[in-house]
Amino acid sequence: MSMSDGTINHWNIIEYDGEALSEKDEMIATELPVTVVVNGVEFATMVCSPEDLHDLVVGFLASEGLILFYEDIKSIDMDEDAGFIYVDLHKPLPEDTESHSKRFIGSCCGKSRQFYFKNDVKTAKTVLSRMMITVDQSLSLMKELQEHSEYFHLTGGVHNAALCTLDEMLTIRTDIGRHNALDKIYGHVIKNKIRLSDKLIVFSGRISSEVLLKISKIGVGILISKSAPTDLALRLANDLQITTIGFVRGNKLNVYTHPERLLEVSGTEA
Amino acid sequence: MSMSDGTINHWNIIEYDGEALSEKDEMIATELPVTVVVNGVEFATMVCSPEDLHDLVVGFLASEGLILFYEDIKSIDMDEDAGFIYVDLHKPLPEDTESHSKRFIGSCCGKSRQFYFKNDVKTAKTVLSRMMITVDQSLSLMKELQEHSEYFHLTGGVHNAALCTLDEMLTIRTDIGRHNALDKIYGHVIKNKIRLSDKLIVFSGRISSEVLLKISKIGVGILISKSAPTDLALRLANDLQITTIGFVRGNKLNVYTHPERLLEVSGTEA
Repeated sequence: MSMSDGTINHWNIIEYDGEALSEKDEMIATELPVTVVVNGVEFATMVCSPEDLHDLVVGFLASEGLILFYEDIKSIDMDEDAGFIYVDLHKPLPEDTESHSKRFIGSCCGKSRQFYFKNDVKTAKTVLSRMMITVDQSLSLMKELQEHSEYFHLTGGVHNAALCTLDEMLTIRTDIGRHNALDKIYGHVIKNKIRLSDKLIVFSGRISSEVLLKISKIGVGILISKSAPTDLALRLANDLQITTIGFVRGNKLNVYTHPERLLEVSGTEA
Repeated sequence: MSMSDGTINHWNIIEYDGEALSEKDEMIATELPVTVVVNGVEFATMVCSPEDLHDLVVGFLASEGLILFYEDIKSIDMDEDAGFIYVDLHKPLPEDTESHSKRFIGSCCGKSRQFYFKNDVKTAKTVLSRMMITVDQSLSLMKELQEHSEYFHLTGGVHNAALCTLDEMLTIRTDIGRHNALDKIYGHVIKNKIRLSDKLIVFSGRISSEVLLKISKIGVGILISKSAPTDLALRLANDLQITTIGFVRGNKLNVYTHPERLLEVSGTEA
């Protein structure tokens, strides 16, 4: 399968290979926000991979019941650079059509143009945690999450998120929805007014932009995941000052962003 | 971890253990639609695991920016049986609050109460395919999908969906979002007016209710997935007459619903 530049981005990350930390060029899946405008009305914003966008928008319109046949579409104009797709249908939109979400594009921290949903602008926040973590602590917390995840192994259908100190898991929440597991942690934090400056989150699922934004809303500075991140998640993590540690498997891991929170030795500086 | 009855359901499924088919009692993760009503306004419906719903709703409200502190909430009344959570806030909702999705509960096919989103009632359809498939064909199609998924192995961050005949993969679509990969297949089908009575879909991701609904909208009768289903997905699959084959790993697989489409021998009856 050919790898077009659009679908994968290269990132310079730090890898722990079981013995030592080293820099590494890593391929990261691209995540792209695309806003679909139907008959001049902003209908939905999807976060997606930037391949086969034409198929995606046609399938999405059918899936939402806006078209039955391809011929119901008068035109599709793609502005991929701006992330907008303009669709004109032969029929007007049904009167009860609800738009799914509106997006807001702003410049964040003076860096490259970033993407946030409107609600996220209000609630996503830069994380100022000074917490430090060692490789051993990261590996050991992920091991603990997996040991507590019999539920996952039993049904193969749920995600786990755990609020942790450097040394132990405090609260685990489980859900079939990745975001729900994180919202359950967030609810627990808010209800119990838990201080976050010495806390981090260990997570079983992939680090998408939406997961990363939830982490920033909760307000922890370190995210450890068994899975891989997307590039949009990493760009947001860079801006929002979150350390993302991913692909934690066995005694290996990758540090994707803000490695300044990583201690090479098993230290107690945290 | 204790398994409360609510979080797991038992299903009688058919397992292929590498040698033979047999019935098996399998534990399946529960998926529950929960509608959050804020200050009397239907705000959102989430599909989630039915644990820690109180934490979920508090975290969700914070995540959406409706509350900053737990004290912003006047009351939370949970009607778990009906799947409704009523929240009263001390403040009114912001004027620009958009509800996320409205749900519709109806009785489907005269069976147990089922859940669909409003749009899904219009577009989800019972699949009348008479296609049959063998265990060998199922295993071999999944193997083919995985061989074509170097992209997945490279980045660990994307899902693959493939439109197939019994013998070969025709079209693969890839996305970081499970639903997007399926919408890309759907778009391809609609654009090319592909006849579906002899087609099925092979999928890398978990079979959630939303994935299952997409399969029914596309209109194929057989779904093969590497991963596990949820119970809501299986209830929908039963009603919508979709054969779900999951946990296809190595030379093993599970048949969860409508096993009448499975041929035990490598036959050519399809």
